[in-house]
Amino acid sequence: MPDYDHPASDDLTLLGVLRGLADPIRLEIVQHLGKVPEASCAALLGDRPRSSMSHHFQVLRDSGLLHTRIQGVQHFNSLRKEDLDRRFPGLMDAVLAE
Amino acid sequence: MPDYDHPASDDLTLLGVLRGLADPIRLEIVQHLGKVPEASCAALLGDRPRSSMSHHFQVLRDSGLLHTRIQGVQHFNSLRKEDLDRRFPGLMDAVLAE
Repeated sequence: MPDYDHPASDDLTLLGVLRGLADPIRLEIVQHLGKVPEASCAALLGDRPRSSMSHHFQVLRDSGLLHTRIQGVQHFNSLRKEDLDRRFPGLMDAVLAE
Repeated sequence: MPDYDHPASDDLTLLGVLRGLADPIRLEIVQHLGKVPEASCAALLGDRPRSSMSHHFQVLRDSGLLHTRIQGVQHFNSLRKEDLDRRFPGLMDAVLAE
């Protein structure tokens, strides 16, 4: 399976990031990832249907919030905190403080 | 005309505020209001249709981002920066820095 595309940090937009965050499931994933170095999709799925979740992961990747690393058949997700902090200082700290 | 309802600052939610911000027109209004004490609806409308804008103003009020003060036939809008700063420290500074 090929790697996912991730936008370059210079291409992130505030509006895109805010849209990525503006959903209860995606916000929960982001806040979960704020507490761990990375998490498998399975760990983040909980008991939610996989079909709807793959859309949320895609939105999170496209907005620059999340990086997905593929290792074998497992997908490991991490928050792009450094990139986000550089582009939008203070934003993620405010979001993760909740 | 009666005053608008505005949610109490303790009732604001991070998700609600993020949803309020996650639209290009609403984000522009918020960033405009970050630079001025208040602005009339007319000043914020630009050349956009009034009909679609009243929805955006309502979303901004409901999410706790915006306060509308009625004076005669004019509506004056301001950012609820103090309330937002108290509830979500650093969030609005990050949004307004863009």
